[in-house]
Amino acid sequence: MVHELKSFVRGDFHAGDGARADLVNPSTEEVLATASTEGIDMGAAIAFARETGGAELAKTTFADRGAMLKALSKSIIAHRDELLDLAMKNGGNTRSDGKFDVDGASGTLEYYADLGAELGATNVMIDGEGAPVGRSARLFGQHAFVPRGGVAVHVNAFNFPAWGLAEKAACAILAGMPVVSKPATSTAIVAHRMTEIFVAEKILPPGVFSFLAGGAGDLLDKLGGQDVLAFTGSHATGKKLRTGAAVLERGTRVNVEADSLNAAVLGPDVEEGSDTESLFFTDVTRDMTQKTGQKCTAIRRVYVPRARLEAVVAELEGRLAKVKVGDTAHEDVTMGPVSTAQQHKDVKAGIEKLAGCSTIAFDGGAGGKQPLGQKDGKGFFLFPVLLVCESPRPGDAVHTHEVFGPVATVMPYDSPEELVRLVGAGGGGLVSSVYSDDKAFLKKAVLGIAAFHGRVTIGSAKVAGQAIPPGTVMPQLLHGGPGRAGAGEELGGRRGVGLYMQRVALQGDKALLDLLLGSPAR
Amino acid sequence: MVHELKSFVRGDFHAGDGARADLVNPSTEEVLATASTEGIDMGAAIAFARETGGAELAKTTFADRGAMLKALSKSIIAHRDELLDLAMKNGGNTRSDGKFDVDGASGTLEYYADLGAELGATNVMIDGEGAPVGRSARLFGQHAFVPRGGVAVHVNAFNFPAWGLAEKAACAILAGMPVVSKPATSTAIVAHRMTEIFVAEKILPPGVFSFLAGGAGDLLDKLGGQDVLAFTGSHATGKKLRTGAAVLERGTRVNVEADSLNAAVLGPDVEEGSDTESLFFTDVTRDMTQKTGQKCTAIRRVYVPRARLEAVVAELEGRLAKVKVGDTAHEDVTMGPVSTAQQHKDVKAGIEKLAGCSTIAFDGGAGGKQPLGQKDGKGFFLFPVLLVCESPRPGDAVHTHEVFGPVATVMPYDSPEELVRLVGAGGGGLVSSVYSDDKAFLKKAVLGIAAFHGRVTIGSAKVAGQAIPPGTVMPQLLHGGPGRAGAGEELGGRRGVGLYMQRVALQGDKALLDLLLGSPAR
Repeated sequence: MVHELKSFVRGDFHAGDGARADLVNPSTEEVLATASTEGIDMGAAIAFARETGGAELAKTTFADRGAMLKALSKSIIAHRDELLDLAMKNGGNTRSDGKFDVDGASGTLEYYADLGAELGATNVMIDGEGAPVGRSARLFGQHAFVPRGGVAVHVNAFNFPAWGLAEKAACAILAGMPVVSKPATSTAIVAHRMTEIFVAEKILPPGVFSFLAGGAGDLLDKLGGQDVLAFTGSHATGKKLRTGAAVLERGTRVNVEADSLNAAVLGPDVEEGSDTESLFFTDVTRDMTQKTGQKCTAIRRVYVPRARLEAVVAELEGRLAKVKVGDTAHEDVTMGPVSTAQQHKDVKAGIEKLAGCSTIAFDGGAGGKQPLGQKDGKGFFLFPVLLVCESPRPGDAVHTHEVFGPVATVMPYDSPEELVRLVGAGGGGLVSSVYSDDKAFLKKAVLGIAAFHGRVTIGSAKVAGQAIPPGTVMPQLLHGGPGRAGAGEELGGRRGVGLYMQRVALQGDKALLDLLLGSPAR
Repeated sequence: MVHELKSFVRGDFHAGDGARADLVNPSTEEVLATASTEGIDMGAAIAFARETGGAELAKTTFADRGAMLKALSKSIIAHRDELLDLAMKNGGNTRSDGKFDVDGASGTLEYYADLGAELGATNVMIDGEGAPVGRSARLFGQHAFVPRGGVAVHVNAFNFPAWGLAEKAACAILAGMPVVSKPATSTAIVAHRMTEIFVAEKILPPGVFSFLAGGAGDLLDKLGGQDVLAFTGSHATGKKLRTGAAVLERGTRVNVEADSLNAAVLGPDVEEGSDTESLFFTDVTRDMTQKTGQKCTAIRRVYVPRARLEAVVAELEGRLAKVKVGDTAHEDVTMGPVSTAQQHKDVKAGIEKLAGCSTIAFDGGAGGKQPLGQKDGKGFFLFPVLLVCESPRPGDAVHTHEVFGPVATVMPYDSPEELVRLVGAGGGGLVSSVYSDDKAFLKKAVLGIAAFHGRVTIGSAKVAGQAIPPGTVMPQLLHGGPGRAGAGEELGGRRGVGLYMQRVALQGDKALLDLLLGSPAR
């Protein structure tokens, strides 16, 4: 059943004209749907969102919007099985991968729904304590986040159609900004279905949420100084968005999450068979293979004390050998294909690039192993690959080239100082993790690599039983990173809401400021 | 006495080769100094700052750095008269203009010195309350600002050689980041002298502060993902910096302050002869003519209730007629020339552009009036010009073109809604001011225009006697604005320090996080 995805703009579903892109099942290459935005008037779509949606949201408070997010979350939960099924078909996800995406979406919406309730019946959020600015206490300065008059355009990556849509929309809508959401076309079926559900359940006022199935066309040319453009995807596309007239000429606020060579570090104190070691192995294996390695937070680099190199590689090989690759319609499969033919090609080329400075220690597909359920050689299947780079150096491909698949490189280090230098050579990342119970080492390693990251997780014995893996993005913690990772910041509770508001300093008579601000969120 | 300005890089003063730029007295066009950075190895300069300066600062705490800033502030105060003299000669400043720049520099350094003492003996700044991220209280998330390993490059505007250097350097050094400061060449003498003073007094460890007298050369190509580039100046130059490889390819963090069409609004309630009206007239006149209108925070647009238009224009004309233009060496002069021949040309062209949609109501130079002390027709003198635009519309030049001189346009408005639309048509600005004692009007006007600004000031009767003019940037309040203003944020107390640090979410065992962070600044 090939169906045509429609865009939801100006309060209605619209099919595009012209050439349509095919959306396939990456396990079978069967075409599931087509999409096109040709002929859709992007200017009118943006104007409707900004004006109609903006006016609707201007009438609401954080608490009202929190209630909307709660309803969105519930609607996803109510259609969970259907969405998981679509994620498996269009994304090559296992059911577990699908849950990571779909439950991540409903969970993040719920978190921001609760934050909306907490922020309360106002649309202004206070930023820090105010202070006198003159000689007397009367002349006062107060920073606050106030609603912007613009629209939020969200350009999402192919790997998280549900979560990507939800985490960005949650922050923007809670801030009071209407959303135009554009998922990557190749895996847009889940996001499209979510949009249909949101619309059918009439959760959001007109214009608050729009959706594009297909290319962005000239959408970005329509943005101005009050708008926000948030993008998750490749460095190359991020660069294109950053050099558009909207950003350069009109100062559209832009937030980019791009490439990231996330590292996992095993501390020198961690003993064989310890809880901390076990957590390390579990995390590395999961964050290499979950979603077939197609996570911006996946572990790409593994640093271990030189003396442990051989043992760690052997253990990881053993664990990776148990991964069952194949069509996720097949019950036994624990890792599906990558999502597109292009990804498949890129990962293969990337492994070759890494092999220039490393050796392949383990290839899950060695010996002509075939994916489970594969038919006629179809499908974008990849087996996990573990490389070892014995003498890592900053300029090496392993520190500069992200391979977006189930691939990681293990490297030795000799001192905390060398470790920090090597992790930093990744040029800035989203998240890295350090596994240790040695406080002196943790202090050097964690604080040393912190400047290169938006998030650092510590795996230690006391939290081993309840740890949240580094690759799992929590709504209450920042998601983003400096340098190569795009220099952006999303989520992090209120911080993510602030991205869609204007921070302004108000200066004047304190009594008057208090009166103007009413009872803002504190 | 023409002298050659030298750059201070790699711990020493270096003269450039090749063609030198002339730095003149804009009242007489006499050449005061020359400057060139040709032949200076920018890569080596940056590396020295990043490595030597970075290592020195890594050994220090906020409190230590606060003490350095205090010493810098004191050194400026000790050389105040000499610096004011240079500001008058090279900047065309009146003595009062010079104080605004030089005292702004020492005052901002002192503010951040005090903040350093308050932040204390640590180099980490906590960001908000932490929170549990898992099922138990033990697994915790905490955001913190940690030192980045990079260098801060500061590209400053010609109008504030002292303050521009100091306000940026204060934040970066307090954050723990070494600084390379590049003022606009045309008015660099004051900044150059400050550098000589800092060096002679041995206040800063090696590499912490570098200075370029002349062009930036390939400086920006040397920046990476841990570095910060902060720029104040024209939209066109901001765009060039934003599209460089450092920002696009390596994710150098960039902050831009660019054009701004700041507005002053007179409320419909303000009565003739009231304190609020008097404050409005004083502020508009000062923030049009101070520094010959060469302030990024100068008032360019004045909105008044339609019924008051004629009376307001008449009063402003009377006040502007008292402005005495001329060579600031001449005692009676209250407004000097603009700083460069190019500015002179641009302002004249800009007035013509504004006159396309407005009429010139007042021209201080009408009737062949000559600048005081002008010799042989030399000097970049301009008289104040007041325009009136009777039917302002969003696309008009008055809403899109910044004239960087003693020029403003008065416009009528009929309702708060129209006012907000017109102020917003400026496309985003640094600061606007609203003068009123009517709470209902203030609520509509202030909150309505807030989204377009980094700062909004309220002039009301109760603070009229002590108000700080909108054009005066306070270190404790944000400086920056959305859209046309560059979408940047500087100063604002700790916020400005955060620009030079990395915000990171730390996730793990709460007891361990507390231990790693020690006693961070809260």
